[in-house]
Amino acid sequence: MGVVVNIEGGKRENASIEAMIALTRADMGRVNELILSRAGSDVEMIPEVANHLISSGGKRLRPMLTLAAAQMFGYKGDGHVKLATSVEFMHTATLLHDDVVDESDLRRGKRTARMIWGNQASVLVGDFLLGQAFRMMVDVGSLEALDILSAAASVIAEGEVMQLGVAKNLETTEDDYLAVIKAKTAALFSAAAEVGPIVAGASRTDRAALRSYGTNLGLAFQLIDDALDYGGNAEDLGKNVGDDFREGKVTLPVILSYRRGTAEEREFWKSAIENDQTDDDSLERAKKLMAKHGAIGDTIGRARHFGEIARDALAPLPQTPQKQAMLDVIDFCISRVN
Amino acid sequence: MGVVVNIEGGKRENASIEAMIALTRADMGRVNELILSRAGSDVEMIPEVANHLISSGGKRLRPMLTLAAAQMFGYKGDGHVKLATSVEFMHTATLLHDDVVDESDLRRGKRTARMIWGNQASVLVGDFLLGQAFRMMVDVGSLEALDILSAAASVIAEGEVMQLGVAKNLETTEDDYLAVIKAKTAALFSAAAEVGPIVAGASRTDRAALRSYGTNLGLAFQLIDDALDYGGNAEDLGKNVGDDFREGKVTLPVILSYRRGTAEEREFWKSAIENDQTDDDSLERAKKLMAKHGAIGDTIGRARHFGEIARDALAPLPQTPQKQAMLDVIDFCISRVN
Repeated sequence: MGVVVNIEGGKRENASIEAMIALTRADMGRVNELILSRAGSDVEMIPEVANHLISSGGKRLRPMLTLAAAQMFGYKGDGHVKLATSVEFMHTATLLHDDVVDESDLRRGKRTARMIWGNQASVLVGDFLLGQAFRMMVDVGSLEALDILSAAASVIAEGEVMQLGVAKNLETTEDDYLAVIKAKTAALFSAAAEVGPIVAGASRTDRAALRSYGTNLGLAFQLIDDALDYGGNAEDLGKNVGDDFREGKVTLPVILSYRRGTAEEREFWKSAIENDQTDDDSLERAKKLMAKHGAIGDTIGRARHFGEIARDALAPLPQTPQKQAMLDVIDFCISRVN
Repeated sequence: MGVVVNIEGGKRENASIEAMIALTRADMGRVNELILSRAGSDVEMIPEVANHLISSGGKRLRPMLTLAAAQMFGYKGDGHVKLATSVEFMHTATLLHDDVVDESDLRRGKRTARMIWGNQASVLVGDFLLGQAFRMMVDVGSLEALDILSAAASVIAEGEVMQLGVAKNLETTEDDYLAVIKAKTAALFSAAAEVGPIVAGASRTDRAALRSYGTNLGLAFQLIDDALDYGGNAEDLGKNVGDDFREGKVTLPVILSYRRGTAEEREFWKSAIENDQTDDDSLERAKKLMAKHGAIGDTIGRARHFGEIARDALAPLPQTPQKQAMLDVIDFCISRVN
């Protein structure tokens, strides 16, 4: 099984994003203003579509990471606000394109933009937001930050294409799966965290620490998200339990259950994932098999593993409120599932 | 009718892109190498999809403009090759997304990427190429060039969204239409031409001249493209005659015919464009009505008008081979239709 982890860890004391929210409250106010102004356009449909998604109530974890990471190194300018907004726009563009690619009807319990305005508008408004994200980065004027964020844009798209390749494919290994989530999710967390020290002029060592923190937090975040899809609290989840199953997504809980299953169980998974037998009875059976093989628990265990790496990445840094808030975020991400 | 133009102009002597091709041949060799390497990825589907489009035989006019514009001001580095490749990637990304948005089956007589690999891959590989385009711009290190090209990326997407708004809408005015093509087509021509003098460190006046040349060349190019759709030579055109009609696109030949038509003719246009009555008989009738009202000739006339503005934009510049090649390109674009 490779990775040995303690899955009995339980919640840590500070499994909360409250400290992160408090530290970034003033800056996030400026991010939110910038979001509204930069999502504006004389072309009416653009702010309509953009605001639908922007107002749909994500936690805005990624821009908060950028802000806190810049504060941590004493940054006093306003470049971090623009970079944080760029990060959120890149994320929003990805969501708009994802919904088209996945043919999703709902996101966070609301109808997706593509269901209201069509696939066309979702593709194009995503492109617009990506363009605006780059304009803001250019405004900041840091070629290093541009380098990190433009590379992330390519890698995210590569990860999404990789995901198409593993869709409905039960031969997908855990390594394949990790490569996908590293690219599609962790790359943006990583870039969001790294541009903080960059804009603040911190050392290469500090940049590397924040980059590693972001990457591993992103991996943990996505693993927990994938576990939640088979039994989370719908409110926390922002999507319906079983969405991944119905779309035939091969996430870690499925990979582990399939690989650990009997020949007869593997037939079940094939009919479900490869041949779309994903009704409610099938979903119930899938959840029972995951319980039998400890697949959810071990997915959470893997997430804890990456959470520990993220924690150690920050260990050498001085104990600041920002560092503590970032450590709390790790626990918060993992505790969503408990 | 507002714009008075000479539509009898006929072909000019040098209505050719041969001089442009000859001047940029060596640099285009390097652009082509860079295209192949930067469209590469370990994710197999990415180079497959990208190369399908890249090898489909466009004239690569946009990157040639960037190269010639940099040469014109004595540029000796290799930044123009990267910027030209970025411009071509931005264009390719737009085509991939356009085919999804328009639900097109064919481009330049070949099946579109979305017909072979699906809409999903077309959206995501487009995103990847856009990310790679920005990475190359960052490599060049010119914040001014980044500013121009990132702004163009936003404006192009805005233009595409605007186009959704005017689709199948016969109330579209010529001004509305010009706003759409200025954003969706002319913005990239303009940016492609302007980043040449930028990377070469030319004056603001020279930048403005090239920007104006690019904008007006792009407008002329798109107007001719729209005229060709109702009677061009399919080889030149790279698409089938009548594609715009069948998709209900409201281009200038339609706008002029509708506005100049009788009440009964306007009913025909409504049934065709708004209610999808676009069989071959309808296409024939549309072409007859365009002939009756001189709509194609006047669309070409409008293109000539913008071609003249592009010509005058370059007038103050010293007479170099690059300038002459750019002037020839104006005539080439317009003469495609004769």
